This record gives sequence, structure tokens and C-alpha cells, in this order.
Amino acid sequence: MERPRHQGMAKNTYMRWRLPLVCLLWEVAMIVLFGVFVRFSPEADAHWEEEKQEMNLTSDIENDFYFRYPSFQDVHVMIFVGFGFLMTFLKRYGFGAVGFNFLLAAFGIQWALLMQGWFHSFESGKILIGVENLINADFCVGSVCIAFGAILGKTSPIQLLIMTLFQVTLFAVNEYILLNLLHVKDAGGSMTIHTFGAYFGLTVTRILYRPNLEQSKDKQGSVYHSDLFAMIGTLYLWMYWPSFNSAISGHGDAQHRAAINTYCSLAACVLTTVAFSSMLQKKGKLDMVHIQNATLAGGVAVGTSAEMMLTPYGSLIVGFICGIVSTVGYVYLTPFLESRLHIQDTCGIHNLHAMPGLIGGIVGAITAAAATEDVYGKEGLIKAFDFTGTYQTRTPSVQGGFQAAGIVVSLLIAFAGGALVGAILKLPIWGDAADENCFEDDIYWEVPEDEESDVYHMHNPDKPASP
Amino acid sequence: MERPRHQGMAKNTYMRWRLPLVCLLWEVAMIVLFGVFVRFSPEADAHWEEEKQEMNLTSDIENDFYFRYPSFQDVHVMIFVGFGFLMTFLKRYGFGAVGFNFLLAAFGIQWALLMQGWFHSFESGKILIGVENLINADFCVGSVCIAFGAILGKTSPIQLLIMTLFQVTLFAVNEYILLNLLHVKDAGGSMTIHTFGAYFGLTVTRILYRPNLEQSKDKQGSVYHSDLFAMIGTLYLWMYWPSFNSAISGHGDAQHRAAINTYCSLAACVLTTVAFSSMLQKKGKLDMVHIQNATLAGGVAVGTSAEMMLTPYGSLIVGFICGIVSTVGYVYLTPFLESRLHIQDTCGIHNLHAMPGLIGGIVGAITAAAATEDVYGKEGLIKAFDFTGTYQTRTPSVQGGFQAAGIVVSLLIAFAGGALVGAILKLPIWGDAADENCFEDDIYWEVPEDEESDVYHMHNPDKPASP
Amino acid sequence: MERPRHQGMAKNTYMRWRLPLVCLLWEVAMIVLFGVFVRFSPEADAHWEEEKQEMNLTSDIENDFYFRYPSFQDVHVMIFVGFGFLMTFLKRYGFGAVGFNFLLAAFGIQWALLMQGWFHSFESGKILIGVENLINADFCVGSVCIAFGAILGKTSPIQLLIMTLFQVTLFAVNEYILLNLLHVKDAGGSMTIHTFGAYFGLTVTRILYRPNLEQSKDKQGSVYHSDLFAMIGTLYLWMYWPSFNSAISGHGDAQHRAAINTYCSLAACVLTTVAFSSMLQKKGKLDMVHIQNATLAGGVAVGTSAEMMLTPYGSLIVGFICGIVSTVGYVYLTPFLESRLHIQDTCGIHNLHAMPGLIGGIVGAITAAAATEDVYGKEGLIKAFDFTGTYQTRTPSVQGGFQAAGIVVSLLIAFAGGALVGAILKLPIWGDAADENCFEDDIYWEVPEDEESDVYHMHNPDKPASP
Repeated sequence: MERPRHQGMAKNTYMRWRLPLVCLLWEVAMIVLFGVFVRFSPEADAHWEEEKQEMNLTSDIENDFYFRYPSFQDVHVMIFVGFGFLMTFLKRYGFGAVGFNFLLAAFGIQWALLMQGWFHSFESGKILIGVENLINADFCVGSVCIAFGAILGKTSPIQLLIMTLFQVTLFAVNEYILLNLLHVKDAGGSMTIHTFGAYFGLTVTRILYRPNLEQSKDKQGSVYHSDLFAMIGTLYLWMYWPSFNSAISGHGDAQHRAAINTYCSLAACVLTTVAFSSMLQKKGKLDMVHIQNATLAGGVAVGTSAEMMLTPYGSLIVGFICGIVSTVGYVYLTPFLESRLHIQDTCGIHNLHAMPGLIGGIVGAITAAAATEDVYGKEGLIKAFDFTGTYQTRTPSVQGGFQAAGIVVSLLIAFAGGALVGAILKLPIWGDAADENCFEDDIYWEVPEDEESDVYHMHNPDKPASP
Repeated sequence: MERPRHQGMAKNTYMRWRLPLVCLLWEVAMIVLFGVFVRFSPEADAHWEEEKQEMNLTSDIENDFYFRYPSFQDVHVMIFVGFGFLMTFLKRYGFGAVGFNFLLAAFGIQWALLMQGWFHSFESGKILIGVENLINADFCVGSVCIAFGAILGKTSPIQLLIMTLFQVTLFAVNEYILLNLLHVKDAGGSMTIHTFGAYFGLTVTRILYRPNLEQSKDKQGSVYHSDLFAMIGTLYLWMYWPSFNSAISGHGDAQHRAAINTYCSLAACVLTTVAFSSMLQKKGKLDMVHIQNATLAGGVAVGTSAEMMLTPYGSLIVGFICGIVSTVGYVYLTPFLESRLHIQDTCGIHNLHAMPGLIGGIVGAITAAAATEDVYGKEGLIKAFDFTGTYQTRTPSVQGGFQAAGIVVSLLIAFAGGALVGAILKLPIWGDAADENCFEDDIYWEVPEDEESDVYHMHNPDKPASP
Repeated sequence: MERPRHQGMAKNTYMRWRLPLVCLLWEVAMIVLFGVFVRFSPEADAHWEEEKQEMNLTSDIENDFYFRYPSFQDVHVMIFVGFGFLMTFLKRYGFGAVGFNFLLAAFGIQWALLMQGWFHSFESGKILIGVENLINADFCVGSVCIAFGAILGKTSPIQLLIMTLFQVTLFAVNEYILLNLLHVKDAGGSMTIHTFGAYFGLTVTRILYRPNLEQSKDKQGSVYHSDLFAMIGTLYLWMYWPSFNSAISGHGDAQHRAAINTYCSLAACVLTTVAFSSMLQKKGKLDMVHIQNATLAGGVAVGTSAEMMLTPYGSLIVGFICGIVSTVGYVYLTPFLESRLHIQDTCGIHNLHAMPGLIGGIVGAITAAAATEDVYGKEGLIKAFDFTGTYQTRTPSVQGGFQAAGIVVSLLIAFAGGALVGAILKLPIWGDAADENCFEDDIYWEVPEDEESDVYHMHNPDKPASP
């Protein structure tokens, strides 16, 4: 039973040929490029036995796989279940949230392996990939998942695939500038992932501004069980964030420290989120939107500094502040951004990723600038900031300056890139939905019938549930 | 409030004495057999300190536990949450899906420890178990979970326990023939787990053919939230599949490589699944059945070859093909199998496990046959295919032939075993439901009342919701 | 639209100033105390390079992080997703279950790091924390999550935060007495976590007895999908329990063994739970309450002995017994405790944690007393029970006696502590709900409107769904 409102659709959301074409084109391109460029790193190659002898390793346990694989899997869960389910809070966009996130991430990680590979793992004409590359590809796609949060419910899957292509490219460029040219530390990606991803997504959604979006306002809320699905996403992001921030840190103490700092920051963040969620609401009740999102800000905000000697109490302070900033943002800033700046931010990524990401960059710069040989040890300081080779003479305070520069570069590339990609996505050929059909799965998905009629019934109590 | 249709039940589904009897009998048998046979492997035994000295190991980190435990836990999640929730897509069979899967897997792993132990870990009268045995037991049960997918909603828990007993036994025999007699490589189980498990299950469901199953047709679909529950299963299977295919590979490069290949294959598979799901549907909309299932085919199809030098682009190609094959299967083959061959395959395991499993076996045979010293290195080739002892002189092309033989053996044992077990399960004493009560939890489960009345209300809009 | 029954509330559940105040106060205290006391352990500190040389370690992989981090993450999931979702079974208390569990655990781990740190990791005025401290903090909070199960739906978030403060304190004291003064082994916490946590919670709920709780009886049940959410919790607890019981065991064989024993015990437990769930129900149908809870009793009951040479068949026997005890408890004991002893135990923690915890303590005492050099090896026995230094001359049978004493101490502290804390929580200032508003999210949470009206409609079929 088609419902009348579908008949009057102003836009052509028919995906039958366009979506398959883009998917297949993208994937064939991946196969060709992987065929030309991608091979195994020495630690994943069958010649490893010889490699081991050369590197004088006595045991297979020295393979980087065993240092990083558990963290990789945690990060993998964050990208696919964490982000995917976090966005299922909308009452009728669960398929789109988890399904499109799945699609864009699966494509994005392939393209990221190539883009990051060319910049970082390119040796004699080949990209050599190992477990660290997989983590970095997941990280890169994480920034796309963040941007997806801003435009959730308002774009077609084709637009998402196109955005992914461009955003991954820009991510890799920005990352190269930060890590290689500025020699900046950003293991948990406060700048490269969160600041870049969030401001990129906010710029895109600004350009795709829909003045009449209130037409689908009844679908922008949650229902009881959709909020519980979203909590699955929240908790997996929250629990595995220590793995996220430590996944590519140096072996040994740096990974260990990054996990502890993140654990502390996140714990503190929960308490201030609850405090402000209750305080800012007249009836003093807690708001699931805050619990689902602001509790994670503490993880974002130690992304740069977690592997440094931030110390547990420093982490608590950062988490404390970010829970407040993020919750306040949901209550006051999101409505302001929408009404005044025409930024329609479905998931509130400005509060969860943009502001905490900036804070994270700043905390990282300060923590780096404040580093001393006393705190790190002579060898420890060199190792922590990689003050070797060209950077042998760089001091902590100079490092702090470069860290700060990294924030600015990330912002600039995010704004410029977002504007460019937004303009491309604005072309009227990608099959996005009309305003009244936003946040609704059945534009792009086969939706089981009877549950739908039930919801229909709920929204139209004056009509009978029967056809 | 019992509903009228229950009163007319033709079959006796009363479980009160039969189910407890079988459960307790099975479990007492396990205790006795474990008491006689099962002990700890040296790496889990308190004598490990002495063992370490004998093996000249300098550190506890050399214990196999640290090489495999993270992968084990991922596999464990796949079996219980992955398979369990994947099958919750049915609107009124969520308890049965996740609960019976839990039951059969919990029993199956115990019996698998014994069966596989007798074949592979038997030393001076004892089965010595360590973490690798736990993984293998989970793997073995995985094949039962697959077969469960074909008969989902149509069998009693007793039938499932009986099937588990037989299938685990046959699995162990088949595995012994392949791994020990044919000296075949199959770390991710394309042949031993997927091909065997799927064709076994399909044969069983063929024999249990129910001509009047359309009587419960209204319950064979999903509702909105049941599809989201199923996505939990899908994503955990998808994310942890790299662990599945690498869990029992050789330490070092083989595990590392298997994870990378699987990651690549799965990523490609998502894109072709989406492409064909949209393409094969008139309105161009995506079908959750495909996204939930066909996206996983890429993991199945590199089960044999993932630890070999398949290379990342080879993996992409395999994933590309399997996404197409599996989706096309759901659209065209499943209805054909049901109407013409009388194979009622509830979850479509033919598309997700059978065909991709066969492809996986073939890809494995080709990859093995194509192996060269150039690609693997001299030592690497010997290590990868275990060309030692009796098999010292085996060449890659001969290995390819044996791999192919492994597929045939798996198929034969699956068909023969499935026919035997199907015949046993057809006996009218196991308490399976009548056709009109299939796919319905409240035959075997206490179901909360009011939600049920709500669903009842939805299906019968002309009756009031009140009693 | 406020519903009439809210207007007549006898109690003031307004949280706006009280909850924020407690949260912020608690968190500021944490920051100050962390600032004064908490620093990184040598393995997480930037001086690790020097430490490595001192300890003569050749590789970063020897860092305790790599021995324990995967287990830590599994335990983390158990605390936040496991306990959180296990308690979402109530039809209208999902937000409270998962949200308050999140809140109390996030606060509790911080306070536990301090309390346990003062007792166990205090060196020259500082608490030095590493990954093992994170695990222990999660463990400690686990006991609070258990107690939360008894009072679920009947307390305000402020009461939970106050209970957490006290219970963590008492946990640390009890743990110190057991592990340091009595020199008892309890790696999986049958005594320190389960026995203590459960009897503490039962005492609290006894003191908070609500004679008129039947007023909210219609909300004490589950609905179909809430039972599936709860199964997410169940399965994660079940699957990761081997990590729980092995997380802080000795490196090498002890961790390995603890995982295997737990795996076996849990598997057996599922079968007897199913058997007795069906047997004790007139219609022979399975009860989700049993499947969700009693299947886990096997993990609780090997908490003390899993790292000992319990052997796989010993584990099966323990699991076998506990599945029965726990299921029988749900059917007969819980109603008895409520009607006769006035213990209202929402989640039935008496059956899942209290009795299996006691059994676990006893099994541990017996297994310890039965230890011989023959079974453990000379070195192995010393290592397993830490018979060094002051305890050099302690024999296994003496150890068994001390283990038994540990149970008694845990019980005494649980009862006394629970009585004290219960009395504090009884003060009429904490904002707990009236009897008719128990088990209902919308006292403390913003609940999405239309789903609620739907449920409202279901409960009041004689009224129209429209306002």
C-alpha cells in the first residue's frame, strides 16, 4: 500500500541505475589501482622468515600484528557498529543510518588504503600494507562517518559515496601536511579526524541548507527503542575509545599511556554531561541526546595528547570541561547554528566532534609545549615527539607552535574542501529526497510493511490502522 | 489469553520432559567423557614453568594464548552474537533465533572439543586442550549455526540438539580427512565450515520439506526493529571475519596476511551487494536481506586462501564476485530452490555460505596451485603449505589438486550426512511445530503478553486490542 | 502532555539541582585527589625506556599492556554493555538501566582507582596506575552493577551515586583483607565481586523495602524487544567471561587455564539452565528470564578456581550445578524472598550472583585445599598460590581454610555495609520515586512522546490514543 504523500514527490529518488553504476565504477577502480599498487608489508608477506632474520627478531610475537591487532578490531567496531548505531536514534532512519554508514565506510577504507598509502607507505612503486594501514584507513573513514552525522537523513547514497571519495582524498592531504610537513603528533586524531571531519561536514550541510526542512520535523525525533539502539553505538564508541587513541601510538609505554589517559577523560566526561543535562532542563530530567553524544567528547578531546604525559588528572580535567561544553552546545548552540547560520546538523557533530576536536588540538599543543626532560626522560622525550633526523633540534615549545598550526591547517582544508564538495553535492542529479521525505528510510529502502502501518497509525490517530 | 489457533494444533510441541531429558543426558555424557579424556595442554597447565625451560622460551608472552586469544574472543562473538542476532530478523522468532543458537552452540563446543580432540590433540590417552582447541570448537559449531539458518523456525530445540550431535561428529571426520589425510589448507574453513555446513543444512531442510509452509507466511517477514537487531549480527560477523580467517593461521606473517586479505574482500563485497540489490529491484530500493547477508559472502570466499599470498587486489576481486553471486542468489535462486527443488532455506544459507564456500574452495585450490618460490620465498613456501615430513616433495600444483579434492569430499559428506540426519529428524517424536506455528516463538517460549497482543492487534485490525 | 497520574506524585523526584550538584562535587573531588595521588606506572610512563633496561627486557612486547589489554577491553564491555543491557529487560526502564549503569560505573571506576590504589599500588606517596589497575577498577565497579540489579527501578540516580561511593570503598577494604591479610586467591572475584556485591545489594534492597510495590507491577515485566535487548547484555557477559576470570591471573599458563575453565563451565551451565527452565514450567516452555541470567551462573562460580587446576571436567560439573541452582532460585526462591523476607530483588541477583558466588568461594577453597605438587609441579604450586615470602610455609590445606575465611569476611562486610548504606539511602532527601512510578523512565528521563502514548494506549485500551 503506497501512501499518498509519496505520489507528490518533487524529486527523483529512483536509484536503480545510478547507485549501481557508482558502486561498480568505484569498486572496479579500486581493483585496478590495488592491482597496480598494493602489496603486503614485509610483516604480512610470506618472506617474513627472511625479514625476521634480517631484523634480528627472535620471535613471531615481535610482528606488529600482535602489538596492534586487538586495537584494530576495537577501532573497526567503533567505525561500523559505533558510528552506525549511534545514528539509529531517528525513529524511521535506522536502515539508512547503519546501512549507509556501512556502505560509505566499506568504500572509504579501500580508497583510504590507497591515498594514505601513496603518502606514507610507498616504496619502490608499491604501497606495502600491514595492520597499521588498516587502522589508519579506519581512522580516515571515521572522519567521513563524522561528516555523515551532519547530513544524516538528507542525502542520497550516491551523494555519500561521492563525498567519501573527496573527503578521504582531502583527509590524506591534510594528514600528510600535519604529520609529515609540520611533524605534528596526533595519534588519536583530534585534528586530523575530528576537527577536519566535523568542520568539513558542517560546511557541506551549510551549503546543502534546506529552508523547508521543518516539513519532516515529525521524523527528526526518536522513539523509545531507537534510543536504545543508539546507546549500543554510544557505548561501543565510549568503551573502545582508549583503543582508538592508542592504536597507532608507539609500542610500549605510549600505547599504554594513551589508553589510560583516554579511560580517565571519558569517565569524567560522563559525570559532567549528566550534571549539565539535568541542570539545563527545566524539569531536571536527563536527555538521551546528551547521554548518547556528549559523554564521548572526552575521548575526542584527548585525541592528540593521550599518548603524551597528560597524566590521569589532566585527562580528568579535559573530560570534565568537554562534557560541559558539549552538553551546553546541544542545548544552546545547535538551535542557534540552525536558525542563524543555516547549519542543519542532524546529529550535533558540532558539539561532539568540532568543539571537542578543537579543544583536543589546543590541549595537545599545550601538552607538547610543556614537555620537559624531567617528565619524559631524555630518551623518552626524543621518542615521544620523534625529535630525530631533521627534527633533532626542535624543542617542545616549538613543537607546541607546530601543533597549533596543525589546527589551523585542518580548519582551512575542512572549510575549503567542504565548500567544494558541498557545491558538487548540490547538483540536482544525485537523487536526494524532497524536504518532506527526509529522515525516512522508505525512499531508499524496502521497509517491512506492517510495522510501517503501525507507525503510520501512531502519527494519525484519527485514522484506522486498517487500509 | 490463549489465541484460538493454538487450540487446533495438530502436533505435540510439549517440551517439558523431552527437552530437559536430552539436555541433561547430553551434559552428563560430556562430564563423563571430559573426566576420562580432557586435560590442559602444556601451555595451560601449571607445569608450564618447566615446559618453558624445556622449550627454551624466555618469556611468558610466547605462550600461544597471547598469539590467539584476541582472535578467539572475536570468533566467540561471531558464533553467539553474530549468528544469533543475524537470525533475529524474523518478526516473531527472535527468542528462538538467539536462544536456540545459544543452546546448540553451548552444547556443540563441548562435543567438538572431544571429537576434534580425539582426531588432533590426542596424546597418551588424553586430549590436551589450549586456546587453539577453543577456536576450533567454535569453528566447528559455526557450521552447525549455518545449517540452523536453513531450518530456522521449523524445528524443535530437541531436533537442534540432535542435529548438533551428528553434525559436529561429521564435521570432525570431514575435517580429519581434509587436514590430515589430504593435507589440505583451510584455515578460514571455506570447505570444512561453509561448504560442509551449508550443504548439510540444505539437505536436512530438503528432507524436512513442509509442503504447506505458506500457512505461516505472514510470520516469515521482518519488522522494522527486527531488521535492526539482525544488523547487529551482520556487523559483528563482518567486522570480526578477519579474526575468523586468521585465528588458527601460522604465527606471524600468515595471521597478519589472512586478516588483511579478509578485510579487503569484505570491503569490496559490500559495494557489489549494494549495487545488485538496487539493480535487481524494480523500484531501485535496497533490500535489508541482501545487506544483512550478501555483504558477508566475501569473508566466506577467502576462507581457504586468506592466509595464502592471495594479495589485496586478488581479495578485492573475490569479494567483488561474491557480492554479486550472493545477491543474485537471494533474488533468483532462493525462490527457485523452494518451488522446484523443495528446499526451504529460511535464511538463504545457499547464497551466503554454500555458493561462496564453493567459490572459496576453488579460489583456494587455484591460489595454492599458483604458488611459487618467487612469491613465497623458499622457506616461506614450505611454511605456508607445510611441505614437510611426508609432504616434503609435494608441489604447489599437486597441492591445488588435493585442495580441489577437499571440496568434493566436503560435499559428499555433507549430502550423505544431511540425508541421514534429516531422516532421523523426520521421526515424529521430536516435538516440531505444525506448519501454521512455524516461525513463532510462543510455541517454545514464554512470550510477554502485551506486546504480543499488540502484534496480534496489528494483524487483526478489525478486532479491539483489549481482551 | 503530562499524564494525570504524575500529578498525584507523593514524592519529589525533581533532580535539577541535586543531581548536578552531586555529580560535579564527586568529579571535582576526583580531580583533586587524582592530582595529588595518581601517576603512571613505570610501564605507562615516558621513562619506560630506562625501566626496560633496568628490568633487562629486550622488547616492548614485554610491557604488561600486551598481556592484559585485550582482556581489559572485554571486561570493559561486560561492565558497560553487559550489565547495562542485561537490565534493559524491563519494558519502560531501558534508559535507566543502561544510562544509570553508565553513570555509576563511570564514577565508580575513578573512585576505585583511588581506593584500590591506596591499598595496592601506593609507592612513595603516589598511586602508580597501569592496565591492571584499570581492570581492577572495572572489577570493583562490577560489584556495584550487581547491587544495582537488586534495586533496579526503585532508586534515584543520586542514591546510586551515593551507593557507589560507599560500596567501592567497602569493596576495596574487603579486597584488601582477603588478598593481602588472608592471602586468598580470587582472580575472578567469586568472593570479592559476586558474593560481596550481591549480598550488599540484597541488604540494601531489604532496607529500602517498599510494601506497596505491586502498584507498579504492570511495569515490572518485559516486552518482546526489551527481552532481545537484554540478550545483548547476556551474550556479552557470557562470551567475555573467560576474559573476566583470566584478566588479572598470572602471565602465561594461569591466564590460559582460567579462560579454558570458564569457557567450559559456562557451556555446561547453558544446558542445565535450559533443562530446568523447561522442566519447572507447567507448559514446558522456556523462560527468557532464566536464559538471560542463569546461563551466566557458571562464570560466577568458577571465579575463584578458574586459574587453579580445576580441570575442564571439574568446570563442567560446577557449571552443571550452578545452572540448576540458579534456575531453581528464579522459580522458587525469588518469590519466597520477596514475600517472606521482604527482599525485592528486581533482577534476581540472588540467583545469578549471590548463590553462585558462594558456590564459587567454596569450590575455590576445595580446589586450593586439594592442590598437590604432583598436579601443579613444585614451582607451579608456589607460583599458583604465591607461596613465597611470609607465606613460604603455607600448605594447600591451610590455604583452603583461609579461602573459606574469605567467604565469611565478604559476607560480613556485605551485610554490615549494606545495612549502613541502606539506612543512608532511606533518608527522604534523595528523590526516589513513589511506588506507582517505579520501573518507569519518565521520572528521570525525557522520553520520546509518541512511542510512550503508544504504550499508554496498550495499557489503557479503553482510551483513545489521541490526546
